[in-house]
Amino acid sequence: MRLDQLAEKIDAELVGDPAIEVTRLASLDEATAGAVSFLSNAKYASQLATTKASAVIVGPKQSVDRVALLKAKDPYFAFRQAVVALHGFRRHPFSGTHPQAVIDPSATVGENCIIYPGVYLGPRVVVGDDCILYPNVCIYDDCRVGNRVIVHSGAAIGGDGYGYAFHDGEHHKIPQVGNVVLEDDVEIGANCVIARGALGPTVIARGAKLDALVMIGHGVRVGEHSLLVAQVGIAGSTVLGHHVTMAGQVGIAGHLKIGDGVTVGAKSGVMNDIDPGQIVMGAPALPDKQAKRILLAQLQLPDILDRLRKLERQVEQMDASADSES
Amino acid sequence: MRLDQLAEKIDAELVGDPAIEVTRLASLDEATAGAVSFLSNAKYASQLATTKASAVIVGPKQSVDRVALLKAKDPYFAFRQAVVALHGFRRHPFSGTHPQAVIDPSATVGENCIIYPGVYLGPRVVVGDDCILYPNVCIYDDCRVGNRVIVHSGAAIGGDGYGYAFHDGEHHKIPQVGNVVLEDDVEIGANCVIARGALGPTVIARGAKLDALVMIGHGVRVGEHSLLVAQVGIAGSTVLGHHVTMAGQVGIAGHLKIGDGVTVGAKSGVMNDIDPGQIVMGAPALPDKQAKRILLAQLQLPDILDRLRKLERQVEQMDASADSES
Amino acid sequence: MRLDQLAEKIDAELVGDPAIEVTRLASLDEATAGAVSFLSNAKYASQLATTKASAVIVGPKQSVDRVALLKAKDPYFAFRQAVVALHGFRRHPFSGTHPQAVIDPSATVGENCIIYPGVYLGPRVVVGDDCILYPNVCIYDDCRVGNRVIVHSGAAIGGDGYGYAFHDGEHHKIPQVGNVVLEDDVEIGANCVIARGALGPTVIARGAKLDALVMIGHGVRVGEHSLLVAQVGIAGSTVLGHHVTMAGQVGIAGHLKIGDGVTVGAKSGVMNDIDPGQIVMGAPALPDKQAKRILLAQLQLPDILDRLRKLERQVEQMDASADSES
Repeated sequence: MRLDQLAEKIDAELVGDPAIEVTRLASLDEATAGAVSFLSNAKYASQLATTKASAVIVGPKQSVDRVALLKAKDPYFAFRQAVVALHGFRRHPFSGTHPQAVIDPSATVGENCIIYPGVYLGPRVVVGDDCILYPNVCIYDDCRVGNRVIVHSGAAIGGDGYGYAFHDGEHHKIPQVGNVVLEDDVEIGANCVIARGALGPTVIARGAKLDALVMIGHGVRVGEHSLLVAQVGIAGSTVLGHHVTMAGQVGIAGHLKIGDGVTVGAKSGVMNDIDPGQIVMGAPALPDKQAKRILLAQLQLPDILDRLRKLERQVEQMDASADSES
Repeated sequence: MRLDQLAEKIDAELVGDPAIEVTRLASLDEATAGAVSFLSNAKYASQLATTKASAVIVGPKQSVDRVALLKAKDPYFAFRQAVVALHGFRRHPFSGTHPQAVIDPSATVGENCIIYPGVYLGPRVVVGDDCILYPNVCIYDDCRVGNRVIVHSGAAIGGDGYGYAFHDGEHHKIPQVGNVVLEDDVEIGANCVIARGALGPTVIARGAKLDALVMIGHGVRVGEHSLLVAQVGIAGSTVLGHHVTMAGQVGIAGHLKIGDGVTVGAKSGVMNDIDPGQIVMGAPALPDKQAKRILLAQLQLPDILDRLRKLERQVEQMDASADSES
Repeated sequence: MRLDQLAEKIDAELVGDPAIEVTRLASLDEATAGAVSFLSNAKYASQLATTKASAVIVGPKQSVDRVALLKAKDPYFAFRQAVVALHGFRRHPFSGTHPQAVIDPSATVGENCIIYPGVYLGPRVVVGDDCILYPNVCIYDDCRVGNRVIVHSGAAIGGDGYGYAFHDGEHHKIPQVGNVVLEDDVEIGANCVIARGALGPTVIARGAKLDALVMIGHGVRVGEHSLLVAQVGIAGSTVLGHHVTMAGQVGIAGHLKIGDGVTVGAKSGVMNDIDPGQIVMGAPALPDKQAKRILLAQLQLPDILDRLRKLERQVEQMDASADSES
C-alpha cells in the first residue's frame, strides 16, 4: 500500500513521500524498510532517530526529518487502524459451523458466525450474528450471546454458580436456574469461566473485554466497555458500572457496587463498594494516593522501629536524669 | 404448586393462604406475583415491606402481615429445597455417554452417568454411578471418580504434577506415577486443574466442592466437605482437614497441614501449618484478629510517621534546653 | 529389578545386598518391602530408622545399617532416574494423531508425536518431533512448537493478545498478527493460556516449564529453563532471562526485564525490572531480606502504636513538669 493511501485510511496527515510502499507494522526498534511503526509512548521518542521504519505514526506535534511521518490526533487508534488496513483480522480456515462442533438442536446460531471444532452449545442457547467461538468453548443451556461476540478457546460460559446450602454437616447443591448473557461486541479470553446466575442472569454488558483466565461469579454484572485483565476474579452478585478497568489478578468480593469508570490496580483485593471514578489499589484496596502513602511508610518500617527504640532510650535517660536532679 | 404443598416439601410452617399458587423463586426485590422469595440475611429485612413476592421463606421469629410466610428453622436450606421443588436440577439433552466423548476401552463408567461431548477418559479410569462430566473434561489414566460427582467444563483431572529434578543446568521431568481420586459427592468447577500425585494419589475427599479455576498440586488431600472458592491454588503434598473453607484466590504453600474447620480469608497466602478451627487472613496469613489489628495499624502508618517526627523534634528540644540549663 | 542393576542405572554406590529385588518408588513413610525410597530433605532423616523400604537413595555422607543405601552425589536426580527406571513415562493408548483431533491441512506434525482427541491445530501450525499434546489443547494459526514439547489438557496457545485502542468511548480490537513459539523441551501445564504477540512472537524458550493455569501475555519472552509455578501471570512484552523461578500466583507487570536466575516468591507482584540473581518477594516485590525485615516490623505494628502512645504521654508529662519547674 502507498503511504498516501494508508494516510487516508487511518485519517492521518502525511509528512513525507506519498509514493513509499509499506506492507506491515513493526515496533520502532524492529522495523525494517517497508514497515510502518508508531510512537504512542513518549519514552520511546529517541528511537525516531534510529528506526529503520519507512514511516512512523505519531501525534500532531511530533516532527523529525529522517523518516516519513503519519500525524494523527490519536496515534494509538491510528496504529490500530493501520494494523487493520495492512494485516486485517484472522482469516478462518472454514466458514460456518465446523462439523466437529456440537450444537444442540434447540440452539440457534445467527448469520456469519464461525464455530470451531470442539465447541458445545447447549439446549436453547442463542448466538447472534458475526460471532466467533474458538475451539472447545462450552456454552451451557439457555445462555444468550449477542452480535460480534468473540469467545476464545476453552472458555466455559454458564456453568453452575458456586451455590450450596450447608445442612447436617454437608453442602447441598442449589440448582442454578439463571443463565449468562454476553451482550454485543463482548470478547472473552481463553479459559475464562463465567458462572450462570442462581436465579437471574450473569451479564457481561456491551463492549466489555475479558482477558484470559478471568472468573466471573453468579449474578455478577460487568458494565459496558469494562476491561478485566487476566486472572481477575469477581465474586457473586457484584455489579460493575461502565468503563471499569481491573488490572491483572484483582479479586472483588461479592455483593458489591463498583462505580462507573473505576480503576483497580493489579493484585488488589476489593472488600467494599467503590464510588464512580475512583482509582484504588492494594489488598484491602484503598484510594491510590492513600495506598501509596502507606506503601512508602511501610518501606520505612524497619527505620521507624530503630527511631522508636532510640527515642525510648533518650526519654528514659532524660527521665532518669530528671529524677536524679530532683 | 400450592403454598401448602411447598411448605410441606421444604419443612416450613405456612403463615398465610395455603391455596396461593407459586411457580418459581426470585430475590425479594425482583419477585413478582407467583414467585417465592427468601430472607436469609437480616440486612435485607426491610424489603419484606415492599416485595411483590407471593410468599417469603424466613426464619422462625420473623413476622409480617402483608405477605405469606414460610417459616423454617434453617431458611437458607429451605430456600434450597424450594429451588429443587420448583425448578429442579438441569435436564440433560441426552442420556449416557455422548457419541463425541472419547472413552478409552479400558475405562469404566457407572450407571446413570451423563458424559458430554469432548470428554476424554483415559486408560483404566473408573467413574462411579450418577456422575455428570460436562463438555471437554479430561480425566487422565488411572484416575478414580466416585458416585454423584460433577465435573464442569474444561476441568483437567490427573495431568502430570509439576515435578522436575534439576541437573546439569536443565530440569528433568520426573514421571508422575500417582493418580487423582475424586470421592463421592465432589463437585469440580469449570477449568479447574487437579494434578496427579508423584507416587501416590491426590485426593479430593467426599463432599468437597471446588469452584472454578482452582489448582490442586500433586499429592494434596482436600478433606471432606471442604469448600475452595475460585482461583485458589494449593501446592503439592499439603493436607487439608475436613470442613475447611478457603475464599477466592487463596494460595497455600506445599507440605503443610491445614486443620479441620479452618477458614482462610480471600487472597491469603498460607506459609505455615494451621491448627483446627482457626480463622486466618493476609499474606502471609495470620490469625484474623491479629491480622485485623495489623491492618488497622497500617492505615495509621503515615500518621505514625508524623507523630514520630514530632516526638523526635520535641525530645531534641527538651534535650537542648536541658543542656542549656545545666 | 535387582538393586545392583538399579544402582548402575542411577549412577549410585550400593551399600547393601545387591540381590534385593525392587519394583517401585515410595516415600519413606509409605514404603513397604520391594519399594525404593529417597532422602533428599534432611528433615526427614529420622525416618531412616523406621522406613520399611528395601533401599533408600541418599547423599554420599549418609550412613545407616538397617536398610540398603544407594549413595548418589545428587540424590534427587538419582531418585528421578530411579522413577524412570522402575516406572517409566506414561504409555499412551494409541500412537500418532487420534482421529478425533482436528489438524488443519496446512499444519505439519513431526515424527513420533502423540496428539490426543479434541486437540485443534490451526492453519500453518508447525509441531516438531516427539511432542505430546493432551486432550483439548488448542494451538492457533501460525504458532510453532519445537521438539519434545509436552502440552497438557486444555491449554490455549496463541489466542489473541489483549490489545484494544480506546476511541469514542469504545475499545477497538487490534488484530494480533504475531504468534507463539514453544521451543524444544518446553512443558506447558493444563489450562495455561499463552497469548500470541501483537506484531512479533511470544516465546517460551528451550527447557522452560510452566505449571497449570499460567497466563503469558502477548510479546513476552520466558527465558531458557525457567520455572513458572501454577497461576502465575506475566503481562505483555516482559522479558525473562534464563533460569528464572516464579512461585505460585506471582504477577509481573508489562514491559519489564527480569534478569537471569531471578527468584520471585509466591504471590509477589513485580512492578519494576529485577537485576540478575536477585531474590524478591512481596507486593510490590522487594529484595527478600528487605521484604522480610519489613514483614517482621509489620507484625510489631500494634506494639509500635502502643509504644508511640506511651512515649507521647511521657514526653508530654516531662514537658509539663519542665514548664512547671521553670
